[in-house]
Amino acid sequence: MPRFFIAGTNIMGGMAIMRGRDAEHVRVLRMRPGEDMIICDGKGTDYKCRLVKADKDQVEAEVIEVVPCPAEPTVSVTVLCGLPKGDKTDYIIQKCVEAGAGRILFFNCDRCIAKPDEPRKKVERWQRIAEEAAKQSGRGIIPEVDWCGEYVEALNVAMSHELPILMYEKGDREALNAVIDGGKDAKTVALITGPEGGFAEYEADMAKVCGIHVCSMGERILRCETAPVVGVTAVMYATGNLS
Amino acid sequence: MPRFFIAGTNIMGGMAIMRGRDAEHVRVLRMRPGEDMIICDGKGTDYKCRLVKADKDQVEAEVIEVVPCPAEPTVSVTVLCGLPKGDKTDYIIQKCVEAGAGRILFFNCDRCIAKPDEPRKKVERWQRIAEEAAKQSGRGIIPEVDWCGEYVEALNVAMSHELPILMYEKGDREALNAVIDGGKDAKTVALITGPEGGFAEYEADMAKVCGIHVCSMGERILRCETAPVVGVTAVMYATGNLS
Repeated sequence: MPRFFIAGTNIMGGMAIMRGRDAEHVRVLRMRPGEDMIICDGKGTDYKCRLVKADKDQVEAEVIEVVPCPAEPTVSVTVLCGLPKGDKTDYIIQKCVEAGAGRILFFNCDRCIAKPDEPRKKVERWQRIAEEAAKQSGRGIIPEVDWCGEYVEALNVAMSHELPILMYEKGDREALNAVIDGGKDAKTVALITGPEGGFAEYEADMAKVCGIHVCSMGERILRCETAPVVGVTAVMYATGNLS
Repeated sequence: MPRFFIAGTNIMGGMAIMRGRDAEHVRVLRMRPGEDMIICDGKGTDYKCRLVKADKDQVEAEVIEVVPCPAEPTVSVTVLCGLPKGDKTDYIIQKCVEAGAGRILFFNCDRCIAKPDEPRKKVERWQRIAEEAAKQSGRGIIPEVDWCGEYVEALNVAMSHELPILMYEKGDREALNAVIDGGKDAKTVALITGPEGGFAEYEADMAKVCGIHVCSMGERILRCETAPVVGVTAVMYATGNLS
């Protein structure tokens, strides 16, 4: 069934009103009055609707049923990634949204090779990728994607979560599954992953000092664009959100 | 440390001999006598070696230490994928090898959109992608990639594993984590995933008749190239191979 996101305020009195890009999309799909669609408020609630009218500028649909979006995980995972090169950001966003991430933030650290002048300029495009992936995978929210500045800021964000984890590929680390299983009741999880060159040792030490769990993800070395989706999947699996 | 795969027969008498493409690679890396490398026999054993001589045609290295490759998971996972369009195969191969898959097979089924005349022609290229990913991620084997023909053949292959699972996105299914946790002692797992359009209902029914667990992966709809890596990650997590 076609799936759209609209702002909650456009659903009122048992009717959903769509304009702009989404209304255009309904026309492109050649939907006819009487056909069903799901309109999501982007806050985890799905409105099952029946199309009433599709005009040039506006689409009207009758609300048939209101349900919590079944695809939203019970745990909110924030993914924090050292900014990788090129379009790996796009891949990370798409796959993490599919896997169930609640928010995706990129930051700058010691070994970030790509330092675009203004990563903030990319945020709008990143957000569109998240929206597309959220629609396609049936999510009940559009995960926020943003640039969060320097590594210290990423640590600060992570520390505001009940279970903050940093993935690191060497040295003295905790086992990922012990940490996740030990924090199974956490409702908020942060996963920090590095750029192509990984983290510098002092960066891993900083995380430890902040009380962040520095974890191994097994002995296989994961690419910087693979580690985030593997991490989100591990959390979803452990918290019963993969079944 | 640089990592190479060579056939086991080229390691003898405490010396490792490399020729051809790998010898070329050693020269490209400008390695000097006295530098260390890991040469893997592709069967799960790592030979830590010290470079003795790098001639135009041949590289000789002294074997310092022989250890089981620490990156090899304790469970052997065969991934079976309905052939997707375009270069999604490459992505599936690369990510599944990183995640720890032991073998990757593609097959043809009802909703496969891409039906290249001879997918067998692609096997050699697929295998090179697996080799690259195995080197990069530190694997102890080069997972086999192959074309396995029709869906019925994929079911047959899956049934030769202790824990055969088919991922399906609707209807009456078992929970993936219950099935994996219930089969934790299995040493061989098969994961069957569909092409872009998923499986036809009769195909899921066929799998059930064969005794294959038909499983849900949560309510989020995963792209055909995302489901295999998510499945492999779930198995690795559950069997303690992600820590």
